[in-house]
Amino acid sequence: MHYFVTGAAGFIGSNLCDRLLQLGHRVTGFDNMSTGQHRFLEVSAPQPGFTLIRGDLYEDRAALTAAMAGADFVFHLAANADVRFGTSHPRRDLEQNTIVTWNVLEAMRANGIKSIGFSSTGSVYGEPNVHPTPEDGPFPVQTSLYGASKLASEGLLQAYAEGFGCQAYIFRFVSILGERYSHGHVFDFYRQLLDHPDHLHILGNGKQRKSYLYVQDCMDAILTAVAQPAKVAIYNLGTDEYCEVINSATWICERLGLSPRITYAGGERGWIGDSPFIFLDWSRIRSLGWAPKLTIRAAVERTVDYLSANQWLLEQRIG
Amino acid sequence: MHYFVTGAAGFIGSNLCDRLLQLGHRVTGFDNMSTGQHRFLEVSAPQPGFTLIRGDLYEDRAALTAAMAGADFVFHLAANADVRFGTSHPRRDLEQNTIVTWNVLEAMRANGIKSIGFSSTGSVYGEPNVHPTPEDGPFPVQTSLYGASKLASEGLLQAYAEGFGCQAYIFRFVSILGERYSHGHVFDFYRQLLDHPDHLHILGNGKQRKSYLYVQDCMDAILTAVAQPAKVAIYNLGTDEYCEVINSATWICERLGLSPRITYAGGERGWIGDSPFIFLDWSRIRSLGWAPKLTIRAAVERTVDYLSANQWLLEQRIG
Repeated sequence: MHYFVTGAAGFIGSNLCDRLLQLGHRVTGFDNMSTGQHRFLEVSAPQPGFTLIRGDLYEDRAALTAAMAGADFVFHLAANADVRFGTSHPRRDLEQNTIVTWNVLEAMRANGIKSIGFSSTGSVYGEPNVHPTPEDGPFPVQTSLYGASKLASEGLLQAYAEGFGCQAYIFRFVSILGERYSHGHVFDFYRQLLDHPDHLHILGNGKQRKSYLYVQDCMDAILTAVAQPAKVAIYNLGTDEYCEVINSATWICERLGLSPRITYAGGERGWIGDSPFIFLDWSRIRSLGWAPKLTIRAAVERTVDYLSANQWLLEQRIG
Repeated sequence: MHYFVTGAAGFIGSNLCDRLLQLGHRVTGFDNMSTGQHRFLEVSAPQPGFTLIRGDLYEDRAALTAAMAGADFVFHLAANADVRFGTSHPRRDLEQNTIVTWNVLEAMRANGIKSIGFSSTGSVYGEPNVHPTPEDGPFPVQTSLYGASKLASEGLLQAYAEGFGCQAYIFRFVSILGERYSHGHVFDFYRQLLDHPDHLHILGNGKQRKSYLYVQDCMDAILTAVAQPAKVAIYNLGTDEYCEVINSATWICERLGLSPRITYAGGERGWIGDSPFIFLDWSRIRSLGWAPKLTIRAAVERTVDYLSANQWLLEQRIG
């Protein structure tokens, strides 16, 4: 199979490229390198089955369409994943997530490509009142521009599946951790503790309950799901656990051998649109035989170890 | 109050302008006149409290922002309402519905306007498996580009309500009938019967079950809802009834004194994305004291009478 991967030089994209190549597939990666890292592709790039095309999904639909020629399956992972600052630049999620997804679908249509896998988010559930939250729980109300843009993208995939006979695999992720992680609370905490090992400041009250998944478990889940035929298949990807932000902070500090003074910004939410409780029901993907191998704590520790071994990443303007 | 109404020269928009003016409010209407009709504004236009500004919501955000200055409340009713031909021009719903809604929200933000009423649709439920369908029923899967674009717009309103402290009133309509109706199955059937009174061709098998609401009942519902304070308020607007397309066709023929031969295109759906069963649970708005006054049959008959008295409308390229 020939896979086309958007956001190929990103955290999740580069891990997926590695996996697909390892399975003997051909991979064309597409990335504008705005947050993607060449070093994330150090496993994939040297392989003969891999091509990286630098291009912008929003600005240049013609280049995207040309780059996609000959692919059998598209993984659309590129996104503005900056859920925290949506209200500071309210057009970014619309452009980089919603309109870009439409561009990807149109490029597929122009090339006669019928299958797509898409990285959505548990944020589409807003602040759910059912926990763990199933895929077909109550029709949610959006609380962030990021969630709204991902919901809009899901709707486009679903309408294209119905209207043009595509297969759409939609993955609603909890936060993903592991190798090449470069954005999120572990990154922020790690950077803070590098700057001032005696003090850690936490957004919100630290009691936000969150669920996390290790990136290699996430890869296993995606590959399990796309092996099944589907028209529109929607899967929550999560674990049976959740933790409080303060638990995660404690694990990080312990891993680093630090005992900082902890302060809190206060409030139930870390920022506007932050859901105080994310915990997804993943029984649908479990029924396909997948289950995560790492606990949240183990995933947090691997992430800390990865950041410790890759301090170059902290110099990058990604987070 | 000073209301700003997008799509002011359209079917629902012009009826709303009439109502708001009748209640003593000031109204600024905005319309690109692509499907709007000056004749729909023959009641509103002469009134001193009314101003019509011609402009395009997609092309000219600066003009929109300027036109909105001084308004207290925005009703965003402009839309590409052409649910049937989404796959023939797949960018239209994205531009005219999703992106335009973002433009409206940004113009509001620039003007410090905090309240918006929005015409969404029962199509956001896709093909629901709960009937009548409540607002918080199972998280739906989209089946049309139109529905997807309205869902995306709802998400934007909700995220703006959370992020910028707006009030958002979202109305999920069944099909609306009545005076100035200019698009939909009654229009299509009426036009067919004018062309060839002995033959009526029905898309699908005629057994699609649909719900309809009279436009003046719709106006009552909207005005009832926006009188309540809210952050995000979502209301289905429908009736306790539904009918089959063949029922409606029969009522139209009887009203016109015709007995045409009826043929069917066949299939459960009239077109790609046509939901075979639309029937909304409107107990939420009922709890505010609203209820529709007209039956579906009476609404169909008023629509036929309106078209009979306004044959100029059939010459327009609206449908």
